Amino acid sequence: MSTIPRFFPAIPAGGSGTRLWPLSRTGRPKFLLPLGPDPARSLLQATVDRLLPLCGLDRLLVVTGEAHSAAVRGQLPHLPPANVIAEPSARNSSAPIALAAAIAHERDPDALTGSFAADHVVTDPAAFQAVIEAAAQVAAEGLLVTVGLRPLRPDTGYGYIEAGGPLTGGPGLAVRSFTEKPDAATARDYVATGSYLWNAGMFLWRADALLAEVGRQLPGLYDGVRQIAAAYAAGDGPQVHAEIWPTLPTVSIDVGIVEGAAQRGRVACVPADFGWTDVGTFDSLAAVLPGDAAGNVRVGGAEVLAVDSARCVVSAAGRPVVLLGVHDLVVVDAGDVVLVCPRERAQDVGALVGSVRDAGRGGLT
Amino acid sequence: MSTIPRFFPAIPAGGSGTRLWPLSRTGRPKFLLPLGPDPARSLLQATVDRLLPLCGLDRLLVVTGEAHSAAVRGQLPHLPPANVIAEPSARNSSAPIALAAAIAHERDPDALTGSFAADHVVTDPAAFQAVIEAAAQVAAEGLLVTVGLRPLRPDTGYGYIEAGGPLTGGPGLAVRSFTEKPDAATARDYVATGSYLWNAGMFLWRADALLAEVGRQLPGLYDGVRQIAAAYAAGDGPQVHAEIWPTLPTVSIDVGIVEGAAQRGRVACVPADFGWTDVGTFDSLAAVLPGDAAGNVRVGGAEVLAVDSARCVVSAAGRPVVLLGVHDLVVVDAGDVVLVCPRERAQDVGALVGSVRDAGRGGLT
Repeated sequence: MSTIPRFFPAIPAGGSGTRLWPLSRTGRPKFLLPLGPDPARSLLQATVDRLLPLCGLDRLLVVTGEAHSAAVRGQLPHLPPANVIAEPSARNSSAPIALAAAIAHERDPDALTGSFAADHVVTDPAAFQAVIEAAAQVAAEGLLVTVGLRPLRPDTGYGYIEAGGPLTGGPGLAVRSFTEKPDAATARDYVATGSYLWNAGMFLWRADALLAEVGRQLPGLYDGVRQIAAAYAAGDGPQVHAEIWPTLPTVSIDVGIVEGAAQRGRVACVPADFGWTDVGTFDSLAAVLPGDAAGNVRVGGAEVLAVDSARCVVSAAGRPVVLLGVHDLVVVDAGDVVLVCPRERAQDVGALVGSVRDAGRGGLT
Repeated sequence: MSTIPRFFPAIPAGGSGTRLWPLSRTGRPKFLLPLGPDPARSLLQATVDRLLPLCGLDRLLVVTGEAHSAAVRGQLPHLPPANVIAEPSARNSSAPIALAAAIAHERDPDALTGSFAADHVVTDPAAFQAVIEAAAQVAAEGLLVTVGLRPLRPDTGYGYIEAGGPLTGGPGLAVRSFTEKPDAATARDYVATGSYLWNAGMFLWRADALLAEVGRQLPGLYDGVRQIAAAYAAGDGPQVHAEIWPTLPTVSIDVGIVEGAAQRGRVACVPADFGWTDVGTFDSLAAVLPGDAAGNVRVGGAEVLAVDSARCVVSAAGRPVVLLGVHDLVVVDAGDVVLVCPRERAQDVGALVGSVRDAGRGGLT
């Protein structure tokens, strides 16, 4: 495998992942945690690991919150410091992704860039890399390319992409429409047709193509990120970034840019299947991490002794967890607090954080 | 309440309680653990607390294994050192209980003594003390007196006492028979009659009356414990104890002495109801410890945040345990290991200890 020429992938590293409490905390967001198949690598590190062969260290960009930039640099000690861009505040996804495109464009006017979330799991990096190489071919034509995961189940927690026919001369498919989280019946219909894909929020595009769409749909954002990127190139990036950032629109890249571009026929998708999950909940880990013969999943190398127990998801903190006669439970020993809940309640873990604060234990959140 | 004259209660402190693993360990048996309503007192300390008003410090005897005698003395710093007798090896219950009677008899030929397990829970100490005072009246007549707990359910894990009519001139009832753990149908019949009581293994008797029965039924044990007791009075107790102890019979007090005495009409019982359990399993704690509105029981002052959760039994180790959407579970954080099992599997926890050893984690047992 060789690198993709002029490829500057951007990794937005934001979000705290409260549904993964008590592993995730305000000061220790999901992307810094080792939740993937390799217990020695955080989700962020694993994201970098699978992108590096495609781009090299010098062209990999990470955009994260100021509160986490030191931890990000600590986990990625070989990344050039200038490639970690600290957001003065969180402004949804269009601002950091457009900024990364502007910075890539400053460095190389023919740059290819895109967005790869820091907190997803991919269990088949080789398949991922092949898909990105295919997507890069499509993006080189000037289209915005989204990666569409072949749906494994009629999940109502994801957005869906309706794919059309193949585009001439490449592996891309046309995109007919995007749908936000559908109801269960709609999701079943989508999966049955075979032409709907999960929208993983994973994009590739030429920096100039993305910036052209930003300029058309969100001209204020365009001006802002161009100014900030120029300032970073000139050496006073953080100061200009702090001044301009609060004035920029707060909107997701999907709603702010991609959907509008799709209506103009400017979006393609590349279908993919590389063992992906957004790790939204502890339950979702069971779909991608290897389990034992009874389906018990050990997160982050947890030491688990399971007797008459099946389909549990367990995270430990250096202490063994012993299960006897239980099934479909989430058990998380985070070192300073222990959580037990059924997998089917994993969606409700985020709401616990408020209860923990109400109980006077905000220090654990 | 005043003390009972010449009352030398004996507390056999033995057994490890493997069904309470991982709280109980080889080196930290059940009786040293704070499993009762007061999280600041171990089961042993609570046993002493409820007996002390009846006897005073000078007459309270504890018989324990050599491996645990230092821990016992540490938990009972005010007890005279001579009142903690260390067994050179475990020899079931008749030897330590007969020895305690012999020691009490050395100190006072008219001594009243008996046996009160170190690892049971009593939630109503005042009712306990009233029952013991009543039992002491019956024992003063020379009968062996057993305390019979009014059954709360047709439990198949306990022995049963068939009580007869009232004895003249006191609160005692005749004892017709003893039955070991019955099957479920028999247990239901027993409870339905109203004349069966749980055998809690809690006894009172005059030391001379018990020793007379020992002499009749187990003469070798009689000679041995008289020699050992004389040696303790003379100052060379441990040496003589170590020499004689291995030669004594290993049999329970029920089988070795009480059942034979009952056949001769020498056993009475006193019915009682003071919130008792032998804490055989984590499940049994739920029957005696106070729960929250949803029936969740916090063992040893555990900090528990229970959301949509009911009837769980939780022990913690200075860390909070958070429950979401679970019911009828046992969750034990022992500091170095976490156990999760359904309450209905609590009987099977003892067998886990072998599995933990097989997994190379014998250090946790």
